[in-house]
Amino acid sequence: MPKMIKIVEMGPRDGLQNEAKIIDNHVRYELIRQLVDGGIKNVEIGSFVSPEKIPQMAQSAELITHIMEEQRSGKYNGVRFRALVPNERGMLEAIKTRIKEVAIFASSTETFSQKNINCSIDESFERFAPVMKLAKKNKIKVRGYLSTCFYCPYEGKTDPSVVFKLAARMKKLGVYELSIGDTIGAATPNEVSTVIKGLKKVLPTKAIAMHFHDTRGTAIANVLESLKLGIVTFDSSLGGLGGCPYAPGAQGNVSTEDVVYMLHGMGYKTGVDLGKLQMTNHWIGLKMEKQLPAKFSKAGFPKI
Amino acid sequence: MPKMIKIVEMGPRDGLQNEAKIIDNHVRYELIRQLVDGGIKNVEIGSFVSPEKIPQMAQSAELITHIMEEQRSGKYNGVRFRALVPNERGMLEAIKTRIKEVAIFASSTETFSQKNINCSIDESFERFAPVMKLAKKNKIKVRGYLSTCFYCPYEGKTDPSVVFKLAARMKKLGVYELSIGDTIGAATPNEVSTVIKGLKKVLPTKAIAMHFHDTRGTAIANVLESLKLGIVTFDSSLGGLGGCPYAPGAQGNVSTEDVVYMLHGMGYKTGVDLGKLQMTNHWIGLKMEKQLPAKFSKAGFPKI
Repeated sequence: MPKMIKIVEMGPRDGLQNEAKIIDNHVRYELIRQLVDGGIKNVEIGSFVSPEKIPQMAQSAELITHIMEEQRSGKYNGVRFRALVPNERGMLEAIKTRIKEVAIFASSTETFSQKNINCSIDESFERFAPVMKLAKKNKIKVRGYLSTCFYCPYEGKTDPSVVFKLAARMKKLGVYELSIGDTIGAATPNEVSTVIKGLKKVLPTKAIAMHFHDTRGTAIANVLESLKLGIVTFDSSLGGLGGCPYAPGAQGNVSTEDVVYMLHGMGYKTGVDLGKLQMTNHWIGLKMEKQLPAKFSKAGFPKI
Repeated sequence: MPKMIKIVEMGPRDGLQNEAKIIDNHVRYELIRQLVDGGIKNVEIGSFVSPEKIPQMAQSAELITHIMEEQRSGKYNGVRFRALVPNERGMLEAIKTRIKEVAIFASSTETFSQKNINCSIDESFERFAPVMKLAKKNKIKVRGYLSTCFYCPYEGKTDPSVVFKLAARMKKLGVYELSIGDTIGAATPNEVSTVIKGLKKVLPTKAIAMHFHDTRGTAIANVLESLKLGIVTFDSSLGGLGGCPYAPGAQGNVSTEDVVYMLHGMGYKTGVDLGKLQMTNHWIGLKMEKQLPAKFSKAGFPKI
């Protein structure tokens, strides 16, 4: 029987928040609706960060409250929605929306931590304590993110032993899954192998998610390498949405369609309907006024 | 010691011949010069096909004659230039240019053979006989290409056993290396593995080159899979040049820069200077009036 692979869709959050064009809340809502209709069961739908800092994620509370209401009334059966929370204030906002799952994020390098979230790595873990306490009290599941696990844009190559230590700290904190980010998309398969082998000593394999950005064209090869090491959870974004508006070369998450096309071709199951995702790609591309990088959605299925 | 991987550059031939924009012969010459300066040691520089059918390759004879003259006078030391010849007439033209290596091409599926070269597979092998005879007489090495080895745009999925039989026929003919093409870029790693394992029973591993197009985003993963099976020769094109002007979704060869970036990151040697190739990518992009798909060349090296 083919193995099931969990696709964690990043488009509506990690994708959109890194696009220069800000889209309306109702377009983000429609994107989420179409993704779920296309078989996506895990999706990050918003972020409780400062709307001044990240205007793309403004009105997340409104959007999430609405989606959670719909889910309670019977829609989106079996779908797990999630929002990013940076601190206790964000967590309190998230609780109000009645979302059942949140995510916390730390960096593997001090400079990126300072530049991204204005605090040291230790300080970020201090901020997680009250978040985890509130999560437990409100029966909210928490996913962890660790960024710059391979390369840091400021410090260069990341020491894998630091990643392993931080992964153990995240586990101790109580996250049910840890997403390992190649934030600047520079890792190659041997580096992926080294990091995964070390992580397996700290976390159960099924609690490790790999989160690749496709900045230098290696993301899909890194997914293949991870698969061979038993990883069953991958973060990706529809069309490869994302990147960074301030760095022209930066690319988004590896595209959901290309990952799913490869997985299905290899006999894995994902529950995703690629034809539907292709249509969603073309629709959101029109809204974003750009052609998204995902290759499958340009070409479609080959004749079989 | 890291293993050496042979990169066979397709940009000036397979790349340019499939671009809608036709560039001048002197730009093609400058592209070849820059590729060689960037460490490329194997490069396909032209094709002796009908200039009415493929205007992009017109004046190949002039260009190749000039480059071969330069090589005889001491330039391009150790570089192997190659041209595609479809038949005896093309071979006679090639001989006049004093090129030392040619390539012949067959299809793995009958419909593609008819549509692409107007003859059956058997007829194409009949055309190769006089070409091989002339090659032997003139001490010209011959590389073989086999297209549609995984999927055919007309017939669908290709039967691997047909590929193995045709590979044996190509070997018997006397080609020193056989390039296995995923012409429409639809293969996934398991299919690649099946084909390579079968080919190894027919050809020495070092005589197998893999030729991936990146139409559905899986090409770089297919390169990784091939590497794990011992393949040491890959066809690629600078920037991912190519595709098909008549099919918007079709993509070119896997990009040289992205393949080399991955290989170097994994400790393999290629002799290629990625920084130089990145500059060549930007220069030819201006000439082609488009941004080429290669990701590395947009992003450049990460800080190390």
